[in-house]
Amino acid sequence: MSRQPGRQFLNIPGPTNIPDRVLQAMHRPALDFMTPEFWEVQVECKENLAKILKTEGEIMVYASSGHGSWDAAMTNTCSPGDTVLMCETGRFSESWGEMAEAVGLDVVTLANDWDRAFDPARVEQALREDKERKIRAVCVVHNETSTGMTHDVEAIGRIIRELDHPALLMVDTISSLASMDFRMDEWGVDVAVAGSQKGLMLPVGLGISGVSEKAMKATETATLPRKYFDWNGIKALENGRLRFAGTAPSHLFFAMREGLRMLLEEGLDHVFARHARLAEATRRAVKAWGRGNGPSLFGRDEGALSNSVTAVRMLDGFDADVFRGKALSETNLALGGGLARLSGKVFRIGHLGDLNEPMILGCLATVEMQLKRQGIPHGEGGVDAAVAYLAETR
Amino acid sequence: MSRQPGRQFLNIPGPTNIPDRVLQAMHRPALDFMTPEFWEVQVECKENLAKILKTEGEIMVYASSGHGSWDAAMTNTCSPGDTVLMCETGRFSESWGEMAEAVGLDVVTLANDWDRAFDPARVEQALREDKERKIRAVCVVHNETSTGMTHDVEAIGRIIRELDHPALLMVDTISSLASMDFRMDEWGVDVAVAGSQKGLMLPVGLGISGVSEKAMKATETATLPRKYFDWNGIKALENGRLRFAGTAPSHLFFAMREGLRMLLEEGLDHVFARHARLAEATRRAVKAWGRGNGPSLFGRDEGALSNSVTAVRMLDGFDADVFRGKALSETNLALGGGLARLSGKVFRIGHLGDLNEPMILGCLATVEMQLKRQGIPHGEGGVDAAVAYLAETR
Repeated sequence: MSRQPGRQFLNIPGPTNIPDRVLQAMHRPALDFMTPEFWEVQVECKENLAKILKTEGEIMVYASSGHGSWDAAMTNTCSPGDTVLMCETGRFSESWGEMAEAVGLDVVTLANDWDRAFDPARVEQALREDKERKIRAVCVVHNETSTGMTHDVEAIGRIIRELDHPALLMVDTISSLASMDFRMDEWGVDVAVAGSQKGLMLPVGLGISGVSEKAMKATETATLPRKYFDWNGIKALENGRLRFAGTAPSHLFFAMREGLRMLLEEGLDHVFARHARLAEATRRAVKAWGRGNGPSLFGRDEGALSNSVTAVRMLDGFDADVFRGKALSETNLALGGGLARLSGKVFRIGHLGDLNEPMILGCLATVEMQLKRQGIPHGEGGVDAAVAYLAETR
Repeated sequence: MSRQPGRQFLNIPGPTNIPDRVLQAMHRPALDFMTPEFWEVQVECKENLAKILKTEGEIMVYASSGHGSWDAAMTNTCSPGDTVLMCETGRFSESWGEMAEAVGLDVVTLANDWDRAFDPARVEQALREDKERKIRAVCVVHNETSTGMTHDVEAIGRIIRELDHPALLMVDTISSLASMDFRMDEWGVDVAVAGSQKGLMLPVGLGISGVSEKAMKATETATLPRKYFDWNGIKALENGRLRFAGTAPSHLFFAMREGLRMLLEEGLDHVFARHARLAEATRRAVKAWGRGNGPSLFGRDEGALSNSVTAVRMLDGFDADVFRGKALSETNLALGGGLARLSGKVFRIGHLGDLNEPMILGCLATVEMQLKRQGIPHGEGGVDAAVAYLAETR
């Protein structure tokens, strides 16, 4: 049988399902990007991105993945040998640290177990010990996609303010933005790092940054080499138009205009509540499977479990990647794998983006069906728990 | 909240989910339909439709709904006042009978409870009593979409042959073709009536007929007025090209070429087995809900329950349409309603076309969730029963 019937259930934690409205918005001719027709799109996208980032700072958009926005955060604000604090949260804090080192920074990692919420007091201690105020930036991943844990950006921002430390607060919002609340200005974030392919429901291809006045000021003394991601080269014009290094990614902007409109039509608070609810349904299913001896929630701090992705610890003696492989090949359900040290030990259920109750229930019921089929011991009643929770909530 | 997030779960019994490959096949420029490029499409479609109908007879395709093919069956083969036997199966046998009356035929309905399999012995009796051999045609709906019951076409065909009665056997395959086995020639079917929007996974817009040699012969004496659906005007040319009354529905043909290829890639026997398995999962869920006092299977003859649609009898005191309305408005799940005398008393779960395990499980879990939310008494364990069945079968 050479064809997989039906629609794929895309429950990886991004790229996420692209709504038909977004696909249709891209289904249009190319255009001269130096014309008022496209300028209007840029202005609308910039205004709506600012609403979603909750910032009055600058908005930067690059033709890049989210990693491009990591690079931009570092190279625009730092000089060779500058110290940056990296709050360890998982594979993505590790990977962002590797990039910081590669561009010439001195990365101090605040070690943390991946299955635990990062303790903001660790930042406080490090900043207090930094008598010479050499730390240039504190970097934290808001939602660590590799572990399914959300970290307390607000508390870290408060600490930096209370200590009156000059460090910039840089936050990776790649798998949190537009799925859970993020308040750039209120939380004192200087650089927000985002990408197009998760909560924004778009194809991969746009890196996005929110940049505070303080971070823009830092560009004046930062000497790391930069050009493609140079904020001063691409920051918005007075009239709100964005600029680009090279040709503007116009089709992705038509997609983004539609995706942002959809988010604002639904209402951000509704979007966040929807994600929280579908995530809680997922967690209830996983908890049921884990009762006795079965696959269980990876994260050990209940309050920090992510509303965009749930990491599930596979039972010892079973390979999570074999499990995922069969879910995909037999039932067209795509689940995320464990990254780096979690490879084979964890699978991840993405529940972010354009998702509703039948979609998450179909995913959870299929996971449960595959657990049974593959003979993986698990507690009963996972889907039942999700169904019951969704029935009693709105 | 003005936007419904996520993809709609389209579990009405047609039109069914249109695969992306089919949508993409239609996303092309219009063309001059009198060119070899389009002739090739016609020839391929005709050959593949014949494989799916399992016939060496003529293939007719109209720009019409399936009802057009009903009209064609009658007007091409009958004369005013001719008697046709209509096997009562549900709203669609009733509706086909109304059309037959409207075009001038004398319809004799073989009455049957809608929740029962039609008994082929009723046809035998009627034909035996027809000493003057006035009955021009026996009409039966293979899969009655309004009730979720499949009727025994093969047995009726055998009876006509054994009695050597000249009546034509006309079969509505609209919700069975390409979802469950149908063997036009082997079963002795003279006119097979089909539409594009169900098992073929296409948009509405093409009526399809398979026509036996005997039925073509009947056109010579049939005097009912006809033009748009006149088989002799549109039957295929020697080289296999189809013809049309007016402009060829070329885009629907590009869609059909792709849909037919997909069915044959999967393999018809696999397609039928998939439908049978997803249907059985559905029935097991409904049976669990019906235990004690709850919504239950409408059809009372287990062996005749359809593999393309399941009708669920709503509990007395609850309105099936209110239930469906909330499933749609709250959770974006579209279910079929009860038709005619079943209005408000039945809802229908379509499980035909481009469907897989996560899709049907998402539907069933959402139905169960809505039963809970709407306070409709039901037995527990519906989705669990579906999950368990799918886990233990392939």
